[in-house]
Amino acid sequence: MENWDVIIIGAGSAGLSAGIYAIRSGLKTLILDEKLAGGTISDAPTVVNYPGFAEISGGELAEKMTTHCRKLGATIHDLEPVNELDLMGDTKTIKTTRASYEAKAVIFSTGSHYREIGAKGEKEFRGRGVSYCGVCDGPFFKGKRVLVVGGGNSAATTILYLSGIASEVVVVHRRNSFRAEHTMVAEIASKPNVKVLWNTEIQEIKGNKQVNAVTVIDNTTGQSRDLAVDAVFVQIGEAPNSQLAKASGVETDEHGYIKIDIRQHTNILGVYAAGDVTNHPVKQVGTAVGQGITAALEAYVHIRRPYYRK
Amino acid sequence: MENWDVIIIGAGSAGLSAGIYAIRSGLKTLILDEKLAGGTISDAPTVVNYPGFAEISGGELAEKMTTHCRKLGATIHDLEPVNELDLMGDTKTIKTTRASYEAKAVIFSTGSHYREIGAKGEKEFRGRGVSYCGVCDGPFFKGKRVLVVGGGNSAATTILYLSGIASEVVVVHRRNSFRAEHTMVAEIASKPNVKVLWNTEIQEIKGNKQVNAVTVIDNTTGQSRDLAVDAVFVQIGEAPNSQLAKASGVETDEHGYIKIDIRQHTNILGVYAAGDVTNHPVKQVGTAVGQGITAALEAYVHIRRPYYRK
Repeated sequence: MENWDVIIIGAGSAGLSAGIYAIRSGLKTLILDEKLAGGTISDAPTVVNYPGFAEISGGELAEKMTTHCRKLGATIHDLEPVNELDLMGDTKTIKTTRASYEAKAVIFSTGSHYREIGAKGEKEFRGRGVSYCGVCDGPFFKGKRVLVVGGGNSAATTILYLSGIASEVVVVHRRNSFRAEHTMVAEIASKPNVKVLWNTEIQEIKGNKQVNAVTVIDNTTGQSRDLAVDAVFVQIGEAPNSQLAKASGVETDEHGYIKIDIRQHTNILGVYAAGDVTNHPVKQVGTAVGQGITAALEAYVHIRRPYYRK
Repeated sequence: MENWDVIIIGAGSAGLSAGIYAIRSGLKTLILDEKLAGGTISDAPTVVNYPGFAEISGGELAEKMTTHCRKLGATIHDLEPVNELDLMGDTKTIKTTRASYEAKAVIFSTGSHYREIGAKGEKEFRGRGVSYCGVCDGPFFKGKRVLVVGGGNSAATTILYLSGIASEVVVVHRRNSFRAEHTMVAEIASKPNVKVLWNTEIQEIKGNKQVNAVTVIDNTTGQSRDLAVDAVFVQIGEAPNSQLAKASGVETDEHGYIKIDIRQHTNILGVYAAGDVTNHPVKQVGTAVGQGITAALEAYVHIRRPYYRK
């Protein structure tokens, strides 16, 4: 059983920022991630709103944060998913696919994931025409006919991005108007190769090796029909990666986001959360960074009990 | 009377981050600062804990944030102090030394300032041997005998920094032990050119054109004596720049820090605070950035009332 001061679950912007501060505070720090270190920001083609970098690719920013954290001496185990947690005692135990660990404090920075529509064929064709990230997979469908599901800001961003790559973008939205920024809605209306099907939902995604059609249903008339498309980009929002935390007694809100206070404390002593997995109203790189820093310094206070905070 | 959507008072890390997000949200945004844009971080010789920059000078980081904010289209008026505020109505009015403005929301990001000891001669010799920033002014006293007042982390940092520049560092501390990180305390003890006077306070700072001596008093015996020194570095902490906010009805804690909730709201509708001026427990560049972003997006919600937050 390996012993650590703090174990940070999730190596995205929040977790890496927590790591930087935990290490600099002298805490023995392990960062675990089921995927590669870097987090969701790695998928962003361009980041223009992380203060200090007027323009940088998401991949480069993720790489800079990871290197920064490693350079200071943090141990990062990527591709090591956590299977089981016991958070209730003074010593927390964490079992992963590879080992068992003990820690005095745990920080959840597990982020969020894309929501699925739940249509027939969605899981089957994932990675074979079904995608949740336009900027990741869009370029594979140059000159093809693609479909976007959704009507919020993430859908609008993806529609605009794909309209410059695909020959035609069909949008399927269950409501009769977008819920996105007005400037984006206006820009979508001006694109001749974007066609919007209002009040419409996906019933089934079909294909052979790859997606080649969808069955859609008009939710006002109940009529369904098939459309030939080469890809389906699902953009109906995100959900927090909080199942493991919740199962270990960490309190979440009605949408599953971990409830935090202004100091990133959860309902369990010695357990903190930061970034997209929390119920903080803002989900941005810069806010994830600030929350990660706070979580690490609060873990430090909990473990070391310094003179200035008893 | 100029009309703006949001006026941000203070162009440090918090204010500039708020500016970046306010502008990108389409708000007509004015940032005011009584000094030059950049904020306190400008004084730091090296920053190693702002995630993404493994090492950067404070001046360069401040410059990058300022340029980032200006590039996106924010209007920054530096060297324009605010004299008077009326925050109570839906429309806030702000009078500066140069003009009067109206805004729908106000963000306080006014930071904090160094505490003074209140000794005779302190104000008189400020800038002529009395300094509040070791890394700014230390290099002027190479090979000289300097004095540091204080015993916390900022004092310890300054003592170590100056011990590499000055011939001798005399430390005057009113208690009988440091309240600083253990590693720093141990490092101070190992420096042959650092001499600590415990239970001692400064009564007077003396000189002609420049500081040349101090009168110190032993607070256990009441005995005073003069010491020849070339500079006095006061490092006894910071206090928030919240006088104007407080006078305008913004609620502060017992130390004068503006009380905020998790969304950076103050007690007044349409008025937000971010960064070192707030009662958030962590005062770091990364946390100021996160708070500035949140404050701007909450101001946006207040002004535009978008579909997703009524």
